[in-house]
This record gives sequence, C-alpha cells and structure tokens, in this order.
Amino acid sequence: MKIKELQHLINTEVEQLALPGNPGELYEPITYLMALGGKRMRPVLTLMACNVFSEDVQPALKAALGIEVFHNFSLMHDDIMDNAPLRRGKKTVHEKWNPNIAILSGDVMLVKAYELMMQVDDHLLRTVLDIFNKTAAEVCEGQQMDMNFEGHANVEVEQYIEMIGLKTAVLLGASLKIGALIGGAAEAEAQHLYEFGKNLGIAFQLQDDILDVFGDPDKFGKQVGGDIIANKKTYLLIKAIELAEHSTKDELKHWINIPIFDADEKVKAVTNIYNQLNIREQAENMMHSFVVKAMDHINCIEVTPERKKQLIDFAGQLMVREH
Amino acid sequence: MKIKELQHLINTEVEQLALPGNPGELYEPITYLMALGGKRMRPVLTLMACNVFSEDVQPALKAALGIEVFHNFSLMHDDIMDNAPLRRGKKTVHEKWNPNIAILSGDVMLVKAYELMMQVDDHLLRTVLDIFNKTAAEVCEGQQMDMNFEGHANVEVEQYIEMIGLKTAVLLGASLKIGALIGGAAEAEAQHLYEFGKNLGIAFQLQDDILDVFGDPDKFGKQVGGDIIANKKTYLLIKAIELAEHSTKDELKHWINIPIFDADEKVKAVTNIYNQLNIREQAENMMHSFVVKAMDHINCIEVTPERKKQLIDFAGQLMVREH
Repeated sequence: MKIKELQHLINTEVEQLALPGNPGELYEPITYLMALGGKRMRPVLTLMACNVFSEDVQPALKAALGIEVFHNFSLMHDDIMDNAPLRRGKKTVHEKWNPNIAILSGDVMLVKAYELMMQVDDHLLRTVLDIFNKTAAEVCEGQQMDMNFEGHANVEVEQYIEMIGLKTAVLLGASLKIGALIGGAAEAEAQHLYEFGKNLGIAFQLQDDILDVFGDPDKFGKQVGGDIIANKKTYLLIKAIELAEHSTKDELKHWINIPIFDADEKVKAVTNIYNQLNIREQAENMMHSFVVKAMDHINCIEVTPERKKQLIDFAGQLMVREH
Repeated sequence: MKIKELQHLINTEVEQLALPGNPGELYEPITYLMALGGKRMRPVLTLMACNVFSEDVQPALKAALGIEVFHNFSLMHDDIMDNAPLRRGKKTVHEKWNPNIAILSGDVMLVKAYELMMQVDDHLLRTVLDIFNKTAAEVCEGQQMDMNFEGHANVEVEQYIEMIGLKTAVLLGASLKIGALIGGAAEAEAQHLYEFGKNLGIAFQLQDDILDVFGDPDKFGKQVGGDIIANKKTYLLIKAIELAEHSTKDELKHWINIPIFDADEKVKAVTNIYNQLNIREQAENMMHSFVVKAMDHINCIEVTPERKKQLIDFAGQLMVREH
C-alpha cells in the first residue's frame, strides 16, 4: 500500500477514535490535539512494517493508533514542561485550557494508548505490551535527560546521542517492531526493524539539528536559528563547545551567556563559528553513520526486495527533506 | 493471613521495587513518595481478596504493588493540580523537586504500574488489564469532576456520589476484583467483591467528609473543619446548600462567599448550620446505605464465613475509625 493510503487509514482511525463525552474537559483536549494532524509518521511505520510481512494491515490499525495516541500524550505533557505556547501553529492544550487539564488529559491519553495497544491477538499481547512499556519508560527518560541538559554546561556528544535515542528514536523503533510482529515477523526480524527505526530516528533528529541552522528559510517551517537563539544543546552546539579554542571559544561563550542580544546577530555569529569549526560536515557525517547502521539492519531482513522497498524509500524521503 | 502480615508483605515489596538509577530526577521521586508510607489499604485489599479464594497470596503480590504504584502516581499528579505543599507531613514531589519532574515521574510511574499489573498468569492478563484500564480512566474522570465542582455553584448529591465513586471508590473495587481473580474466583464472585469495594469506598469517603467536621480534634490527623475553611464541596456542604432556607441560606452563602474570615469562627458558624439542618445524621444515613450495599455483595459470595471474615472485619474497622 502507498504511504498516502496508509496515512488516510490512520487519519480515519484518528477521526473515529472513540472517547467518552464526559467530562468534556478531560476528553476534548485529546480530540483537539489529535486533530492538529502531522505526518502520522509513527503509525504509518507500524502499518508499513506489518505490510512487509503481510498483505493485510488491518490487524495493526489499532496498535498503530495506540502509538499515535501515545506520541500525542508525550507532546501534551512535554508542551507543559517546555512552556510551549504553540503546537503545529495552534494553541497548546495547557494554553487553550490550563496546565491541570493538560496533565490529566495526558494521563488518560496514556491509559487510552494502552487500551489501543491491547487490541492485538492474544498470542502477541504480552510481547507487544512489553515493548510498549519499555519504550514508554525510555521516552520519559529521554525527556528527563533533555531537561537536565539545559542546566549542564558540558554535555558530551555521546550523552546527547543517548538522549535523542531515548526521547525520539526508540518510539520509531517500537512502531516498526510492533507492526512487524503483528504482520507475522519472527522476533529476530522484528528486532532488525526496531534497530532500523531507532538508528533512522537518531539520524532524523541530527538532521533536524542541521536544518534548524542551515535549512532554507523559505522551506523550513520554523524560524531558522531557533536552536541557536535558545542555546539549545544540539549536536552542533555540543560539538562546537568541544572543539572551539582560544578566541573562538571566548566568542562562543559570549553568545551563550549574553542575556540580551539581537537574534539575527547571534544566529549569524554562532553560524559563523559553526562554519569555522566545520560543524555541519561533522554533523552530516554523524547522521550518515546512523543511516548506514539503519540500512545494515534492514538488509538483514530476509524478504524480497520489493517488500522492503517502501520502508527504504520512506527512509530516503526522511533523509533528503529540507524542512 | 493477618492484616499486619499482609501490610508487611506489601511494604517489603515497596522497598524492593526495582527502578533504574538513571536519570535520578525521574526515579528518585517515585522511591521518595512510595516510602512516605500510608496504610497500603489498596494492595492489602488485593491480597485479602486473593486470600478469600486461595491460601497462597504470592501470585497477587506484584499486581498489588502495581495498584499501590498507580495510587501513588495519582497522588503525585493530584498534588500538582491541588497545589498541595505537603503529603503525609512531608513535602510533595513538585515542592521538593519541581512541577515538571512531578509530571514526568508520575508518567513513568503509570508505566511502571502497568509493568507490575502484567505480572499475572497469561490466562488472566487481558482480563486484569481491562479492569485496570477502565479503573485508571475512571480515576482521571473523577479527578476532573472534582476540579470542575470547585467552579460550580450547584452540585447535586447524585453528582457528588458519582464523583467520589470514580475518584476514590472504583480503585478499591478494582483492587479487590483483581486479587479475587488471581486467587481463582469466578467472574461473578470477583464482580461481587468489586461492588463490595466500590460501595465501601463511597461510604469511606462520606465518613471522611463527616470526620473532617465532626471528628475528635485529638484523634483526627488534620485540622478539623479544613473542608469548611476551603469551601470544599463535600456531601455535607452540598446537602446544606440544598436544604438551607431563608436566613440560614443567607448565612451559609455569606460564609461561602466571604473572602477574608477568622477560620475558627467560620468553622463554628458553618458547623452550627449543619447542626440546624441535621446534616450529620443525613450523611451518616447515606454512608450506612452504602455499607449495606457493600455487605449485600459480600454476602453473595459463596465461600465459608471464615474466608470472608477478614474482609468484613476490615470493612468494620474502616467504618468505626475516628481519624
């Protein structure tokens, strides 16, 4: 099945997501956030992985929806923690309602995610939930590490990769693994798809970091340099802090520590430091190394090339994006 | 087994709860909150219910711990929402750490609760998780209703009973039902224990409302009249608003609406109104009606009287408490 068809299947599931009407304050924020859209990347991966091993993706639909509900739960709570006013151009739940409602709606979303994940065959129930539990805890760990990094002067590249692995990448891995198992994959094959997804997820996040600084302003959805303005500890900044010496080091410190500044000037100056230190190239090399690992894993799966083609194409599309 | 022994079993499980060491900010608040103690009423009920049908409570231990972890998860998040500074005389998690950590630690606690609930036999896995999902969503619904009531001038007794049923009582019911099923009870017997627990839970909350106003100040752990001072919509206040007429109605409104007041004077005045309207007697009648319903259900269970004795004794102890 084509990506568009899979996305359509997921969007129909999202629209038909059955929630109680009362209390409205608890359930309306869920419908609101889920309807804001997005690429539905994770549930589409679940269906694609199922499709690698089975013609019928129907048995994976509810679990795919569960993944999407879980992802949106984590967005709802992360937005409170990050004090974010907007999500996909609309008010975040804690802004539109209030933080208490966003906490409690998020809680019940996590419960609903479990309800949906449980809609798999009995013989897969424990396996799927074990993967889901592990992944859900890891996503929380990644978010905690990300919050901790804000206050740390020195974060190592290795810690950063671990953090994005947990916060972002394991859920891509789990989306694929669960879909594969529902499609009838053996554990070892499903695990290869997990590793494919996890490594691709890390590459994807590294590319996000690169695009935030070097993306085409006309194509990039957000303000170019947003991470620089916020001193966000991305791969680029961590690597630059590691490599900068002498006056370059002083200049970088200046821009990190100065409380009031002209945003354009700061973005220009820090980008300039990145260019001096060849940071973009190193970030791209790192990114490619994770794409290579991802491809190694998908190559281990013993199905005909046509069956893997869609996943490989999808990975390719993710990695050539300009926004 | 005696209650003390069951409590000891649970406390040992709580002490041995296996959590990762990192990130500390995520997992330490869980250990902290769980160690604050409490009567462990819910997991003890799980073990007792198991014990009604089986000599061996060991198979119910992890699920019982899961119930306690879930209960503490809901306390951690409720304390943020209620802006509570203290829990069992110690700083709440959001006060000791910060609200973001309390949100995220709570989230991962809910995941850990699921992990523990899953430690049941395969043939019970789906049944137990279905009960747990339903109960977890209902607890969130009850908390949302409770928050909504704060802003409502008119709450009906019926709505109040529904709210405490969801927020407090269903978890007691689920604790018993899950324990019973693990002990080998048939669905119908387990459901009778659920109803026993749910009705007892409502009675328990009504007694809490009564004790808050009429409890012995020397034995009651909290400030007597705390609910009156905070205008908390308890059964007593809701019933008094419903019944008060003429000058009594005006006086009650006065005390509800006055922003600055002497606490002792307000407690004395509102208690006086309750006495005029016979509110205590009506609350006790309502409470007893739920105890009767609870007993009707336990009487339906076909085991020897000795096997039920402990649960009945426990219910009795709950209902004659003075604090």
